Order: sequence, then C-alpha cells, then structure tokens
Amino acid sequence: MHSKIDLDKLFNPRSIAFIGASENPFKWGFIIVLNILKGQFRGTLYPVNPNMTSLLGIPCYPSVKAVPGSVDLAVITTPAKTVPAIIDECGEKGVANVVVISSDFSETGPEGARLEKDLVNRARRYNMHIVGPNTMGLYSAGPRLNALMPPVAPLDGGLSMFSQSGNVGVQMLCWGNNKGLGFEKFVSSGNEADLTCGDYLAYFGDDEATKVVLAYMEGINPESNLLDVARGVCRRKPVLIFKGGRTDTGGKAAASHSGAMAVSSRLLRAAFRQAGIIEIEDSQGLMDAAKAFSTYPVPQGNRVGILTRGGGWGVITADICEEQGLVVPPLPDELMQRFNKILPPFWSHGNPVDMAANILLEPFMECMEILAEWDGVDSVIALGGSIQGVFDFDAKVEGTKELKETVVLAREVAREYTTQHDVVLDHTKDLVDRTGKPVITVTLGDYDGFKSDLRDHGVVSYATPERAVRALKRMVDYRRFLDSPVEL
Amino acid sequence: MHSKIDLDKLFNPRSIAFIGASENPFKWGFIIVLNILKGQFRGTLYPVNPNMTSLLGIPCYPSVKAVPGSVDLAVITTPAKTVPAIIDECGEKGVANVVVISSDFSETGPEGARLEKDLVNRARRYNMHIVGPNTMGLYSAGPRLNALMPPVAPLDGGLSMFSQSGNVGVQMLCWGNNKGLGFEKFVSSGNEADLTCGDYLAYFGDDEATKVVLAYMEGINPESNLLDVARGVCRRKPVLIFKGGRTDTGGKAAASHSGAMAVSSRLLRAAFRQAGIIEIEDSQGLMDAAKAFSTYPVPQGNRVGILTRGGGWGVITADICEEQGLVVPPLPDELMQRFNKILPPFWSHGNPVDMAANILLEPFMECMEILAEWDGVDSVIALGGSIQGVFDFDAKVEGTKELKETVVLAREVAREYTTQHDVVLDHTKDLVDRTGKPVITVTLGDYDGFKSDLRDHGVVSYATPERAVRALKRMVDYRRFLDSPVEL
Repeated sequence: MHSKIDLDKLFNPRSIAFIGASENPFKWGFIIVLNILKGQFRGTLYPVNPNMTSLLGIPCYPSVKAVPGSVDLAVITTPAKTVPAIIDECGEKGVANVVVISSDFSETGPEGARLEKDLVNRARRYNMHIVGPNTMGLYSAGPRLNALMPPVAPLDGGLSMFSQSGNVGVQMLCWGNNKGLGFEKFVSSGNEADLTCGDYLAYFGDDEATKVVLAYMEGINPESNLLDVARGVCRRKPVLIFKGGRTDTGGKAAASHSGAMAVSSRLLRAAFRQAGIIEIEDSQGLMDAAKAFSTYPVPQGNRVGILTRGGGWGVITADICEEQGLVVPPLPDELMQRFNKILPPFWSHGNPVDMAANILLEPFMECMEILAEWDGVDSVIALGGSIQGVFDFDAKVEGTKELKETVVLAREVAREYTTQHDVVLDHTKDLVDRTGKPVITVTLGDYDGFKSDLRDHGVVSYATPERAVRALKRMVDYRRFLDSPVEL
Repeated sequence: MHSKIDLDKLFNPRSIAFIGASENPFKWGFIIVLNILKGQFRGTLYPVNPNMTSLLGIPCYPSVKAVPGSVDLAVITTPAKTVPAIIDECGEKGVANVVVISSDFSETGPEGARLEKDLVNRARRYNMHIVGPNTMGLYSAGPRLNALMPPVAPLDGGLSMFSQSGNVGVQMLCWGNNKGLGFEKFVSSGNEADLTCGDYLAYFGDDEATKVVLAYMEGINPESNLLDVARGVCRRKPVLIFKGGRTDTGGKAAASHSGAMAVSSRLLRAAFRQAGIIEIEDSQGLMDAAKAFSTYPVPQGNRVGILTRGGGWGVITADICEEQGLVVPPLPDELMQRFNKILPPFWSHGNPVDMAANILLEPFMECMEILAEWDGVDSVIALGGSIQGVFDFDAKVEGTKELKETVVLAREVAREYTTQHDVVLDHTKDLVDRTGKPVITVTLGDYDGFKSDLRDHGVVSYATPERAVRALKRMVDYRRFLDSPVEL
C-alpha cells in the first residue's frame, strides 16, 4: 500500500508540469491545458514543449528540468516511447507523481507491457507514483485541478470516483453536471501499472471532503488490496461500485478492454458485498444512488411511507417497494384519523396514502409531514407534489379572441400553480432535516429541473418511482451493513 | 363483446354534447371544454348548462335534448347523483356513447356501486355505451378530439393506449410529448362499468391507424374477454402492458384504487405472456419500449452487434445483453479484416466493436454500416455516435484575452462537431430502412434531444445502453411470439 502523503500531493499539487503541450486545438496536449486553465488551477502550470516558447500567453519550457520552480505533479501526453526518458527527468527533478495520459502500453500487447513495466521500474527508483498509463486524467476540486482529457467541467460536491474506464467515468461527471451532482475528486485509473483502485479507495476513504465514493470497475488482480481497504472504508462512508464484466459476454469484452479479469467476476461481486460495498447494476442507477447517498441521511430501516395524488402511481410504487424488499406498513388508526381530517372521504385509507386526485398544495404538504413524522416508517416517497412539466404552456391556440384570452388566463393560473414547486421542495428539505429521514420526491413530469431541486433546495427528486425506490433500496442495504457486527 | 361500430362513433364522433360546461377556469367543466377547443375538434361542440347561454363565444344549451343537431358523444362532468337522469336524456336524444368523467360511483362504496349499476341499466335500454364513470376522458387524433381532464395536448402518432389509471395514462401522454412519441387514441377506462379494457383492445386491434397498443392495467374480472381478444390482436400488432399490482403490497393498493383484483395477478401475468402480450415492468420502460416498437421493424432474432467508441460502455452493453438473454456473436474473419482497415490497430478485434477512442465521424458510420449489413446480427446498438451533450459550452472563462479567444474557438469547433449528430442520425435511419434491422443509438450524453432524433430523423435513441437493451429485448420477445405456432 502506498502512503497517504503521496496521494495528497497527487490530488493537491501546488505546481504542474504539463509535458506535451501543443498549440493545435485538436490535440490532447492543447485540450488538457485548456481544461487546466479554464478550471482556474490554484497553483502554477508549466507547459513543457521543446518547440514552443509560450502557450496561450504562458511561458513554455523545453523540458521539465528547465522549469524554474519545484514540480509536484507531471502530466504527460507525449508518445509512449518517449515516456521512459521523461520519467527519468521527472525523477531527477523531484516530481512526486506523474499522470501518464499517453496510451500504447500494456493495453496493446507484450511490447507495450514491457514498456509499461520499464516506466514503473524507473518511477520506483525515484519513489515516484504513476497514474495510468492510458488514463483520461484526474480532477480535484480543492486546488481547482481539472487535468481531464475531455472538455468537461465537473460541479463541486462530495462525490469522489475512480474508474477503470475513462469514458464511463467522464460520462458520470457529465451526468453529474446535468443532475446537479458535484465531485470532489476523480481519477481515471487507466492501466494501473502503479497506483491501483485500492490506493484510490484508501485515499478517498481517509479524505474528509469525500462523502461518497463511486467507482466503475471491471476487475482486480489477485494481489489487490482493494477488498481489505474496502472493509475499513465502507464503515465510514458509502462506496458504490458499478461492476462491468458481470457476464461471460461482458467479461470477454472487459478482458479486451481493461484486461483486468484475474479474479472471477462472481467471486469478486460476492466479496464486494461482504466488504460492505454497494453494487449498482446499471449506469443510470449509479448516479441515481449517488444523488440519494450524497444528499440525504441513510434511513434507519426498510419501512416506506408513500404519498400520491393518483392511485395508479401509488400501486406502481408499492409494487417496486415489495420487489426491492422494502416494506410499506399499514397505517395505524391514529394516523387514519388525522388523514381523514385532511383528505376527501374517498382517499385510500391506507399506505400508499392516495389523496384521490386532490391537487391542492396544503393537504399534500400536511400529509407529507404526517408521514415523515410517523415513527412507523424510515423514509417517505412523495409523488406528484408539483405538476410542473405537465402543462402544455406553449401550444398554439386558434379560435375566437375570447378563447385565446382565456387560454392566456389558464396559462397564468397554471404557471402560478407550478411555482408552488419551490414551496413543496423547501418543505421537503425541512422535513428531512427535522426527522433525519430521506423524503424523496418523484415529480413524474419527466422534466429536467432536478438540478435545481438538488442545488437550490437540497431535495432528491427522480422522474419515476422505480428509480426512487431502487436508490432508496441501496441506502437500506447500506444501513443493514452498518448495523451488522464488524468482522474480526 | 361490443360491436366495432359503437366504438367507431366513440373515437370518431362528429358532434359532442358537453354536459356540465362551466365558466370557472378551476372547474373540470371548463378545462375539458378548453382542451376540446384548443385541440380544434373537427366536429361540432355543444356545451350544455341550464344556467348559461354561451361559453367562450359558443352557444350553450340548457339540456342535451335542446341541442339542435344530432349528438354522437356526450361527455358528462356533473355530480354523480345527476347522471342517471342525464343518461336517460342522452338515450332519448339518440346519443351513441357517453363518457362519464364524474366520480363518486363504485370506487366510493356500495351506494356508489348501486348508482353505477343504475347508469349501466339505463344506458343499455338505449343501446348506449359508457366510458367510465370516474374516467379522465379520451383522446382521438383523427377527429382531433381531446376530451381529457388534464391540460395535456398529445402529439400525433401510432400509439393507442387504454389505462386503468387516469393519472398514469395521462402521464404517458406527457412523457410522449417530451420524447416525441405520438398517440392515435387514448382512453382512461375508469370504473369500467360498461366498456372494458377488452373492448378497447379489440377496437385498437382492428384500428388501422393504431400501430402499437399500450396499456396500464391493474386487473380484470373473471368474465373479461381481454385475453381472448389479445390472442388475436397480438398476432397483428404489438400489445405492451404495464401491470400494476404485481405484488401483495401493490395488489392491496390496487384493490383500494381500481378494485379490479378478481383474477390473481400471477395467473393474469402468465396468461398475458401466453396470449403474446409484452409485459413491461416499469414506467420508464413502457415508453422506452413504445418508442422502439412504434418506430423500428421487429428484429428477426436475438443477435446484437455493438459499436462503441470507448471500451467500458461496450462492456456495460455486453453485460446487459447477456443478462436480458440477447446474444453478442463473435465477428467472423472477413469482418475482422474489414474493421482492421478502418480502425486503429488497438481496436477490440471483437463484438462489441470498440473503436478504441477513435472519435472521428467517418469510421464510426462505416463501422455501423458493416455491423448492420452483417448477416450474423439481427440488430445493432451504436453508442456515442455523437458527443452532443458532453461539451460544456457555456462555462464562464476567466484569464488572459488570448485564453478567452481560444475558448471561443474551441467552442466553435465543438459546436461544429456536434452538428454531425444529424449526419449520424440520417445514416442510422438509412441503415434501418435498407437492412430492416433496428439500429438503436445510445447518446450517453443524458441530453434531452431525443425528441428531435425521433421526430426529425426517425431514429430511436436512449440515454443509456441498459435502456436500449431492455427495449430491444421486448422486441425480440415479440419476434419469438410471432414465430411461435398459433394455438388452436
């Protein structure tokens, strides 16, 4: 295992040498520099290229050794065969860590594997660590370091992720942007010639700014320390792993992709579970779960209160709860009486609490409060609190002047109604804070306003109840792990 | 079973009496009239209310009998206890069908059930059919009839849906709007006192404009003709049913909601499958499958070619294929040679065809074509054809003037690149037309441009490979049913 100090310098460098700087906007050597500059890196950037004297107004150096100050991190994009000599130069310069973006190493065959082994041997002589090679880079919110290949600018937040696929990992950063989910740290682990997933997990586990750890993994080597590390980390914070290569077909593709198939997928997944890792089975589900874990407290148990304005959605939510092993307990008489006072006589008289098409705001908020405060449930799913996304504001209307005016009026009424969305969200957040229970809203509207639900109101929303329940189930699984005795 | 003629008049009325017209924009009697007018109903609308002489400039009549012309369809929103007398009036007027929006019938208890029975008895005296009561109304594209309670304006298209939950059904219309999926006909079946799901299915089965039938169902009565009808319809067109009340918990909620639990859910689902109905297990999946079925040919078998720019997404797609029972066959030598000529040396040399981070357009389109034309696969899933949705166009940049200018340039390059999206889509559609195989694109970008993919290019896109594969799997299931011998 590598020491924590090394990775601190990796994720919090004060100075970066970028080796392979380019003026060509179609080269990675340009795009990554652009990401670093756009991200407003808090330290010093030294572009390195023997054929240039400046890049975007910044002085460029012929080699890392020519850089005037000390260098904490070197990022390398030069062709594979040039990298060993650069590693030596970095070592002599006293660079602590290098990120080798360059590909054409072990992923391409025996010759590349030899070259890769050579890199590692050289780096170890200088006590230097390598991310990659064949990585898409790394991101760290603290120093505002965005050394990623693709032009993505992650939001700030408490998620940290390592990914055995650069593409999958970076896509999660993009999805995070759309959903309002922010990242603290990210690393594409590449070929893992030196630093491995276990090292990143250990570091993220100790990192106070990291609240939830995410990963995309295809496999580990038998000597990997990942499972040992996970046993400790999972007690402290949730670790959500999306495992690729679960099947024979996927496993074959993974062997050709990351090559990391030394441990059987079935055994590895069982070991994940035992260590307390939450396994996620699908890409959408990974970010759905990340949203719940990073925003809400973990529920105390598996009992769910369901609130709905329409019966059908209550049925659908109850189904998926039972299918996922969650319990929808019956209402006690005392609660029946309270709901009787608020709801029309034909409400469901049970959990799910079906308001029977009552679309007013106050009863909805009152019902949500009664459910959240009820000690018979550990979490609440509230459906259709707002009708945002339903109204067809912009449809053209033809007909009499009177009709057109009325439609304009109806639109105004509808718009006013949908602004109540904010009121529901603030009430929801207040209930989460007061009760310590997740209160998840399902808008049903298939609109994409979830980013503001999360960033502006601190509320976890999903488009469908199934997605809400699957995310909640992962939290319940984690609670069960936290409540289980520590294995000695 | 009811005759087809009756439902023709229901879905294609030339004249509607709207009984319960109101001037109050917060009453259903106003909103539905507004929907009918906004929808530009092709026939004549007669608002009926004894206390008004006109509504939105249209003459209003004191009773249905006072309407000057003939009435094909009456839509009723007046309080439950007033409905029986109105049914008699409608019968005497010679109205063929009535839609009873009004609630407070059998869903509220024995008294309501008696009232409901009374309605049906009266209607039968006049050979008149009832939709509902307690329905959210109906929609029919041909006559531009939008007699729905909520303010939704569905897009035109080949989907027809019946729903035992008005809320769920109407939400699907809204989701259709967002996704570019259009509807031919829609009916909220309500309490099914007279017309039932079996009647709607029979009618949609014969209806040439209906290409795909969708349904949300909670249960059927033992005497229902639905399964008999389905056996015939499913041979002619796909029938996708989202079944609520699959579990004990959901079943209890369904009993309180629609009451339709006379046939065990487990038995019913088995009977659905036997009849050739495609059961969908989740709300998002219903519209995902509806998109594939209504847009693409049904594949000949379960063999899938996968094209990806990044290895991880290929692994993920291969996994979900195998988990869903689809086959990802190995590439024959001849195809290997062809891909060798197009792709960088380190491509995956297998299916999934991983282009190994090649992001150029031409090779992607060529690879897609080779896969689609390969007789070893029945469908293609192409991931990341465009990078639309990835670029961070609007992030603010601070720094030197030179940096700002460069970022503007990079944005222009990126924007130009993303316009290639259209080129990929048109090529995709061309391949579908030429090969008769579904070629599904997965953008990964989590952007919401799918509406234009579908409406402007005729291409089926999803945000994630898992959603694509699940939809494809339903089509493969349907092919298996179509290829199975007809039961006698």
